[in-house]
Order: sequence, then C-alpha cells, then structure tokens
Amino acid sequence: MRPFGETIPLSQAQALIEGALGPIDRTERVPLAEASGRVLAQDVVSDVDVPPFARAAMDGYAVRAADTRGATRDQPKQLACVEKVFTGQVATRRVGSGECMEIATGAPMPPGADAVIMVEETDMGAMGGAGGAVRLFASVEPGQNVGRQGADIKTGQTVLRTGDVLNASRVGALAALGITGVEAYAKPRVAILSTGNEIVDPGRPLAPGHIYDINRFTVAAVMAEHGGVPVPYRTAADTLDDLSRAVDQCLQDDLLVFSGGSSVGERDLILDVIAAKGTVLFHGIALKPGKPTAFGLVNGKPVFGLPGYPASCLTNAYLLVVPALRTMARLPPREVRSTRLPLAQRVNSVPGRHQIYTVRLVNGEAAPAFKASGDITSMSQADGYIEIPADVSALEKGALVEVKLF
Amino acid sequence: MRPFGETIPLSQAQALIEGALGPIDRTERVPLAEASGRVLAQDVVSDVDVPPFARAAMDGYAVRAADTRGATRDQPKQLACVEKVFTGQVATRRVGSGECMEIATGAPMPPGADAVIMVEETDMGAMGGAGGAVRLFASVEPGQNVGRQGADIKTGQTVLRTGDVLNASRVGALAALGITGVEAYAKPRVAILSTGNEIVDPGRPLAPGHIYDINRFTVAAVMAEHGGVPVPYRTAADTLDDLSRAVDQCLQDDLLVFSGGSSVGERDLILDVIAAKGTVLFHGIALKPGKPTAFGLVNGKPVFGLPGYPASCLTNAYLLVVPALRTMARLPPREVRSTRLPLAQRVNSVPGRHQIYTVRLVNGEAAPAFKASGDITSMSQADGYIEIPADVSALEKGALVEVKLF
Repeated sequence: MRPFGETIPLSQAQALIEGALGPIDRTERVPLAEASGRVLAQDVVSDVDVPPFARAAMDGYAVRAADTRGATRDQPKQLACVEKVFTGQVATRRVGSGECMEIATGAPMPPGADAVIMVEETDMGAMGGAGGAVRLFASVEPGQNVGRQGADIKTGQTVLRTGDVLNASRVGALAALGITGVEAYAKPRVAILSTGNEIVDPGRPLAPGHIYDINRFTVAAVMAEHGGVPVPYRTAADTLDDLSRAVDQCLQDDLLVFSGGSSVGERDLILDVIAAKGTVLFHGIALKPGKPTAFGLVNGKPVFGLPGYPASCLTNAYLLVVPALRTMARLPPREVRSTRLPLAQRVNSVPGRHQIYTVRLVNGEAAPAFKASGDITSMSQADGYIEIPADVSALEKGALVEVKLF
Repeated sequence: MRPFGETIPLSQAQALIEGALGPIDRTERVPLAEASGRVLAQDVVSDVDVPPFARAAMDGYAVRAADTRGATRDQPKQLACVEKVFTGQVATRRVGSGECMEIATGAPMPPGADAVIMVEETDMGAMGGAGGAVRLFASVEPGQNVGRQGADIKTGQTVLRTGDVLNASRVGALAALGITGVEAYAKPRVAILSTGNEIVDPGRPLAPGHIYDINRFTVAAVMAEHGGVPVPYRTAADTLDDLSRAVDQCLQDDLLVFSGGSSVGERDLILDVIAAKGTVLFHGIALKPGKPTAFGLVNGKPVFGLPGYPASCLTNAYLLVVPALRTMARLPPREVRSTRLPLAQRVNSVPGRHQIYTVRLVNGEAAPAFKASGDITSMSQADGYIEIPADVSALEKGALVEVKLF
C-alpha cells in the first residue's frame, strides 16, 4: 500500500485544474429548435430588416396624420375608408388625402399613410369597412402606432456574437432573421467510467462482495446538466492493462472522469495509468469527503480520478468537474443558490480538511444529513451543503451557516 | 373589429389559470440514465441492503478490535497478517485471535474481524502482506472504519416517494438498488402553433407583408426548459376552418399554446374557436406587453392564445404558461433569480396596466432595454426585467428596483 503524500488545499486543486484546461474549439451546425442553451461559435449579422416593412402596431385605420389634426370626441374628423389591409397582404393602392384603410396589427402600412389610429378611437359608419366613412375621435402624430421597417433589427446589425449563450429570446432573435440553424461550439464529450472489480451494472445479480454502480449515473446526470455530453464506458477492472485500454479508448472524448481506483490500495491504479501516459497534476486534496482525487493530463485531455465512494465522487463532481466542464463548454460559472440558516446541532469537522457537510432544511434550521462518504443517501436526502474551512474544527448549534442548495 | 371588453388584473388571470388545471397523471418507464429532472410516479422501496455487506471504510487491516487494545506508537501491538482481501472478493477464512487481514476500502469484512485499522497507523514487516507480521500503532474500537451492512439503505426502506423530483444524487440512490429504471410522470406535451397568414417558416423566401415565425421557437425553448415536450405544429391560416382543425389536432397533447389571433381584428379567431369548442376563461389582461391574451379549456385541455408580437408572446409564456406547465408537470415553482439595482433613467408606465419592463445591467444600474412589444430584441438584448404595478405611472431615475434575471 502507498500512503498519500501531502494533500493540497481545495483552492490549489481548483487553480491547477483551471490552469490546465481551456474551452474546446470544435463547432457544429445546430438547428434553431435545438439551439437554446448552446454557445454561439459565430457572429450573427442580419441581412434583413426586422420587421421587413413598416407595419401597423395596433388594430385600427392607416391614415395620413395631417388628416387627423384637431380631431376630438366632440369634433370628430371623417375619412373615407378605401380598403382593408390584413396581415400577410399588401394594399393595392395609396392612401390619398381624406382617405384611410382599415388595418390589422402587423399588416404592412399602405403607401401614403404614415400613422395608425386605434380602432377604439374611431367609429365606423353604417356601411362599414371599405367604402364606408370612418369618424376619428383623436388625432395621431406621424409615425404613431407604426412599427418602422428595421426598428427591431437593421440589415447589417450584429444581432449576436461568438460566445453568446443562447436562450429563448436569443433563439427568437435568430428566428426573426429566417435562419434555420447556427454554428455553435460542440458540447464537450465527457467519458465516464467506473473502475473496480466489485462494480456491477444495474439489473444484474450481485455476487458476494459486489455492489451496484452508482457513480456512472450520478456523474452522467451532473455532466448533462452542465453542458456536457456524458459518454458512459464499460466498467474497467482493477488491472493496469484494463485501465490503460480504457483510458486509450476514452481519449476520443474531451474530458475523462474515472471513479474509483484513486486511493492508495495496491490496486488503485488510475494514478499509475495517468502517470505512465501523461502528467499527474495532483493526487489528494485536503477535503472531506473527496480526499483521494487525482487530476492530470493525458494527450492534453484532462483526466479526473474521482473517489469511488458515491458521496465523495458526487461532491467532487460538483466542486471540481463542473467548473472544468463549464470552462470547456464556454458556459458562465454555475450559479449556486444559497440561504443563511442556523445550525440545528453542533457539527464537528476534521481539522486540516475543508469539509463539505450535507444538510436538510428542517423547520428553518440546517440539520445534518451527512452520514459517510460511502453513503449516497448523505446527498440524496440532503437539500444542500455547508462548507467548513480547514482551520475550523467545529460549528456550534445555532451558528448561522450559508447553505448552498442542490 | 371587436374592441376588448374589460381586461382583468394579472393576478386574477394567474388565479383563473391555476384553478383550471392540475397535474397530469400519465406515467412512463424511464431508464435510469435519463431519469434526472423527472418526477417519480412510484414510491421506491429497497429490497436490498446498501451496502449489501459490512465493508472496510479505509485501506488498512481488518482486525478484532480487542486485539488492538493499548497499542500506541511507543508500544505497538503485532498481529499476523493471514490474507489479503481486495474489493470484489471475499475472505476465504475467519480472522482469529492475534490475526488480521490486509483489506482495501470497500472490500467485504472477513468474518471474525470487527474493525479496520488505517494503513497509516501500521507498519508491515519485511515479509509484507499475507504471512507477514503487522505492527499496529493505535487501537481501534469495534465497528471503527467499518461501513455496516445496510448503513446507507436498509431493506424495506422507502428511498424515494411519488412526487419526488429526481436529481443526480437521487438517481444515485436508485442506482444503488440495482434497478434499471423507474416509473415517472410523463412530461406534458405542449402543442405549439403560430397563427397568421403573414407567418413564414425559416429558410423560405419572404413575400411582401410576410415575416418569419419567431414565437414557435421561443415558446418551444421555454417549454423544454420547464419540463414540457414541445410539439410544434404547422402554422395555421387565419380562417375559422383552419384554426378549428388545428385545435382538434392539438387536443392529443396536454396543453395548447397558440400565438397570434388573440386580438380584436376581424381575423383574430382563436377566441371564437375556443368559445365554440369549449370555454373561454378570460380574454385581455391589464398587462404590458401581453394584453391580448386569451385562456380557456377545450375538452378539459388548457388552451392559451398568446399575443402574436414576439416580446408579448414570450413575456406571457414566462408569466402565465410556465407556471401552468410546471403545475401540470408536478415541478415546484420556477425559481427566479433577482437583484436590487438603481434605475439608470426614469421609466414611464401606462396607468392601469401591470408592466413588464426589460432592462440591461449596465455599470451596476438597470438600464431600459424595452423597445416595443413587437420587438424580439426587447428581450434578447435584456438581462432581466422589472415589474411596474398597475397603479404606478412612473419610476424615477435612481429608484431601487428588483431586477428579475432571465
């Protein structure tokens, strides 16, 4: 057995990771309907005006504003309605002096007209519609209730830029241009692999001494949530050959996340494999849970060796892998919601190790949920966690703590 | 043209919607790898212990605790190492008095042993491993560094309940049981349909007076983000027949979201179609943008008629449709992040209408981003929005406002 050397502080581990990786450059064409959440890999410059024509912003009558001057409810003006313009249609003639056209919101302004008077400020004669007389109870200014051509987006305007993260409204701005897709940065492919002779796939019978694979599922869920494409691999056995083959296979992906095999047992070989094929940047963090985490580079690809214990593995997936993935995916840092609450009971912490301590929210207090690093229910039954710095050995009952919510 | 009747306050519209719909009951089998984010439709009771056996929580030596009593660095105890137990293996014999077995984290405890002493507190003789002598520099208590059988999850324990929303750690708890999938509530299918003769699919040429479809894409993105399955339909023309057929088609889905055709023009027919086939619950909200929104029930299915203008449509998708969808999907209310900032300039608001006013964050201030209801860039270039109540006609420059972030 090979005991740990020195562990490094969490902050140093985080800095080493951030220093070792960067955004990936691969891009792909993404249809508009799948573009929300993606990161643009191109500037989008409009080659059209939006709207492509001046249009009515209200249901009412397209008029020459000058013809409405002085109109009030007591002293209405009257215009001849010469045509109706619906959306999707264009007027067949000009609006002349003393004339108007009934117009629907969104319909193109007829030539000659320069304003729209709302239907609520008009009254149509008995004949109604085209051919009838319309009384106006208010005046309008030129341009009033008209959406100008290009008011939303002008030809030549840069609508969105490389690196912009698309959301619903930005997808809408792209749709306004009539384009069917955009060039986006590829989502990093994250190879996920559990190691260990004891690890069994779900749905199979458990031999004595064996347990079901948890980490493949938790890590995949976290990666998918933070902009990655999880690529699960077959569990590798605890032999140098098997692990070495597994790493080679996974190098087609962008980021490698192994779990298990990162501690100090004789068969904890992931470290040897990283060292043999590339560079180990650290092994062992002053962190609980999550101490036996290794990180390195193989062929320039970041490789995480996370602890095999489910709570440790998932903690470090959140603390270390998510920021790395988001950097590679060009996404902004994860937003963690948090709330300040009193501790429901005293919590001890191992001196010298930064502790991630899971809690439940019970009656407005933060109650311990942490059981053991091997226990997935430490996290699945928790609402969030508190962090206890390495130099703090205990937090008293009632102490106000910042609970970061899952 | 048919002017609006009375508009109703936003809060009343929200109450009418919430009162008219409920969670959907359809369920489906979901593989574990796709279960994160889904809502459980079954209680999950464990039929196994997790871990299924007592196991070492540390790399070290499995011992009988009594044999270690009194061991210190100055006065070590010595035990005979009789076997090695790796993970995935079981010991072939008992640990007798004066004996120990080398054991890896996660390996099953051999019979006879009741504690594990960490490797760091031991020293192996020159012979090493099985057959050698091991010196212990500390004592351990019974149970120390041992993960008890069932300590994480006990047979018969209810691990998760109907209605629980799955996340990574909860998927992990399911994986621990060895199950391959769960029964989850189906995601509500949201029929999305833009209406209007002027609406053109992306990638096609624009005839005069025509514009590209925006709302289908923005609404779909929002629905997908909040637990729905967007089901886009072909744009419907502004005829009663076409709209009526479209509604019939969409009734196979759980929630219908139409845009356009909800105002007061002669061809704004969605209201007539809802009234003919079911019940209109409201038409017209004292809201800007987003006044001409209709809501009703057809065959018990909620039907939204959103405004055709992109900013109005998207605003009401967030304000009205998202809460409805999340209720139907059994998801908790959307969490809106917000920040308090001073207004960069005076903002006027239409009296009597609750205003949603989009803003950008510029130098620590909230600067207006709102242009017009028809302008998608009102939202795509905004960072969030402020709400101005119906009875407030202006907010002064420098006023502290709550910016709700997109």
